[in-house]
Amino acid sequence: MEKPRTRARPSTRGPLAGLLVLELGQIYNGPYCGLLLAHLGADVVKVEPLGGEPTRWRSASREAYPFLMLNAGKRGIAIDLKTEPGRDLFLSLAQTADVVIENFAYGVMERLGLGFDVLHSVNERLILGSSSGFGRSGPDRELPAMDLTVQAMTGVMSVTGFPDSPPVKAGVAVADFMGGVHLCLGILAALLERGRTGSGQLVEVSMQDAVIPTLASNLGGLFEGTLPPRERNGNRHGGMAMSPYNVYGCSDGWVAVFCVTDAHWQSLCRVLGRPDLAERGDLGTTPLRVGHMDEVDAAVDGWTRSRAAKEVARLLREASIPSAEVRQLKQVVGDGQVRFRGMLPSHTHPTMGKVRYFGSPIRMGNASPRRLGPAPLLGQHTRSVLSSRLGLEGPQLDELEAGGIIGKCTTGRDPADP
Amino acid sequence: MEKPRTRARPSTRGPLAGLLVLELGQIYNGPYCGLLLAHLGADVVKVEPLGGEPTRWRSASREAYPFLMLNAGKRGIAIDLKTEPGRDLFLSLAQTADVVIENFAYGVMERLGLGFDVLHSVNERLILGSSSGFGRSGPDRELPAMDLTVQAMTGVMSVTGFPDSPPVKAGVAVADFMGGVHLCLGILAALLERGRTGSGQLVEVSMQDAVIPTLASNLGGLFEGTLPPRERNGNRHGGMAMSPYNVYGCSDGWVAVFCVTDAHWQSLCRVLGRPDLAERGDLGTTPLRVGHMDEVDAAVDGWTRSRAAKEVARLLREASIPSAEVRQLKQVVGDGQVRFRGMLPSHTHPTMGKVRYFGSPIRMGNASPRRLGPAPLLGQHTRSVLSSRLGLEGPQLDELEAGGIIGKCTTGRDPADP
Repeated sequence: MEKPRTRARPSTRGPLAGLLVLELGQIYNGPYCGLLLAHLGADVVKVEPLGGEPTRWRSASREAYPFLMLNAGKRGIAIDLKTEPGRDLFLSLAQTADVVIENFAYGVMERLGLGFDVLHSVNERLILGSSSGFGRSGPDRELPAMDLTVQAMTGVMSVTGFPDSPPVKAGVAVADFMGGVHLCLGILAALLERGRTGSGQLVEVSMQDAVIPTLASNLGGLFEGTLPPRERNGNRHGGMAMSPYNVYGCSDGWVAVFCVTDAHWQSLCRVLGRPDLAERGDLGTTPLRVGHMDEVDAAVDGWTRSRAAKEVARLLREASIPSAEVRQLKQVVGDGQVRFRGMLPSHTHPTMGKVRYFGSPIRMGNASPRRLGPAPLLGQHTRSVLSSRLGLEGPQLDELEAGGIIGKCTTGRDPADP
Repeated sequence: MEKPRTRARPSTRGPLAGLLVLELGQIYNGPYCGLLLAHLGADVVKVEPLGGEPTRWRSASREAYPFLMLNAGKRGIAIDLKTEPGRDLFLSLAQTADVVIENFAYGVMERLGLGFDVLHSVNERLILGSSSGFGRSGPDRELPAMDLTVQAMTGVMSVTGFPDSPPVKAGVAVADFMGGVHLCLGILAALLERGRTGSGQLVEVSMQDAVIPTLASNLGGLFEGTLPPRERNGNRHGGMAMSPYNVYGCSDGWVAVFCVTDAHWQSLCRVLGRPDLAERGDLGTTPLRVGHMDEVDAAVDGWTRSRAAKEVARLLREASIPSAEVRQLKQVVGDGQVRFRGMLPSHTHPTMGKVRYFGSPIRMGNASPRRLGPAPLLGQHTRSVLSSRLGLEGPQLDELEAGGIIGKCTTGRDPADP
């Protein structure tokens, strides 16, 4: 006899199973939000203009790799929202949807006649997740933005790089992705609130706002008065509040090393073979070592300089000192932990063949990570989505296609397209 | 006569009002997750060891600024979880809580006797949000980690900096904060699932996993074969897929400039006074300009070099070309948009006076951003939380205090504390 189930188990289809998301995302910010929602089990339909979103064909006549990685697991439809029938189709879909995501420049949704008030009037339960460079309020709201300019304006560049070099951007798209994940968080908060109120709402995230908290060490240093005037200090601690804390040159690479506790420092002195340093009272605590930062760095560097990075990392780890070899991307892609965690899985795309995509950084319970299908071809699901969700039939779809309102499945960029 | 309310309006108390969160966060990752939950309306109780979490006293005998910024809006209690009575107190609190957050190294919660199975056995509805450097599975799960080492191991350093300089970290704590916000997202997903199943679950995020997607441009370049062998390219596009895209020197600073569309390029040529470049067919599209990146950069640099940064930024903005002056932190703190959006509001801390903290990057509906109270003093709410939630009375609390199980309110670091 089967035991009675006393409680429902967490769904293996994901916590957002059954939710329909219409994604008007472009570049990285909105699409990353959509990708996270897909990983959480939502049905994400990406709505693109007939020429594709900007990242789709960015580099050539075939899909750009970042597009493939960030749009896995979504269905794709192509609609010209600038036409009246196209807008009507979108509004009809929005009537049956739970969430709309967009990261156009400020004002674009309103100009398309798809602002929150319009969406809310056709579907009171709908949540609109909206992200832009600087937000929907304030003096800078209309400034165009991409990751590079947000990094410039938030001080990320000013605090990145060596003191004697120009400011340099973080090599990763920190503003785009901080924007996208915060937007997703806001949407889930709105779904929780909708569970109580029955009503959707506008959720808004600016890339600039989302980056500000990452400056915690740097702003701490500024407010405490310990930040050097140049603001950037290479690989030293952002608030100059820890020592050792740096990347040290080895014979064949670099190793990052730092000491959180004074016990780490004692262990490090043993590895360096420097009992003299371990005994010095003026280096015994973090604040004291910070006052002798150059001397501390020179001591570590003097030891690492003549050794191979792998050997340095091994010896430090054996002594439980926080440390890591600086890896190149190829090593990251081939890394055992990255593979074990399924962060860069692969699947087969209909025209690009075997491609990798981004797994989910969020692990729920004991459920295995969800595998996602390939990013949609441009307009791949236009006909199936419009017929299944809106009941449109062949001749109607043919007419919309012929009128340039919707786009059919396209396997490459139209060479005539500018 | 008052109109009948036909539907509940979104709560101004926030979507998580009424939820109790126990935060065992330390440094930035867990505490940022707790801060976001506090902004969303949860009652966040920070549980610290009797000596405070590592960031509280990091730099001196008074609270470190990043601690104040990231722990606003929380209550604070001090319990020695390494004692049996301390562990029992925590488990009693967990019976009444919705969420526990922790970002200890892997295995610490289990060693404390507070692993998910134990927590779930005392409270089936409890969600445990757990974050660590590399996750709870895989060969690297036991490696200690902080932002610096995760940046080294994920390739963030390898792709940051100039090609002829050593690798350099992103100056912001991208790994810590990507970890914290993804953890918060996972917790909200688990709350949604609990609404259906009645059961809590373990949600897990690794800092390394959370950083991987930010490499979209760089990994795209690697997989497409366009990435230079040195991987880092200063302020050029991470995948070398756009031109112009750089930071250009001015007479008194730097300006970030890029062209998303070919129309931007045409406008830029007008501003530069270079109709000859605008007419050149071999520079007419993004892929073509990428092939002449040095020449394009030299043309822009030749124009910016002799002009002031403010003037360059103004002229480019008037021509609708994406661009931004590279700001220093002081400019960011004083910026009108940052102020308007309330990202660095201030409040009065009982011992530190007027301090700033982080506002929420998430804006819900028309609700004004919530103002949060100051970060708790160490143990400030130990007595009030234990008496209100567990019904403990004066003599019991005195005894626990005398036995070193709980900590009373402390306004500064104990000078005797090592």
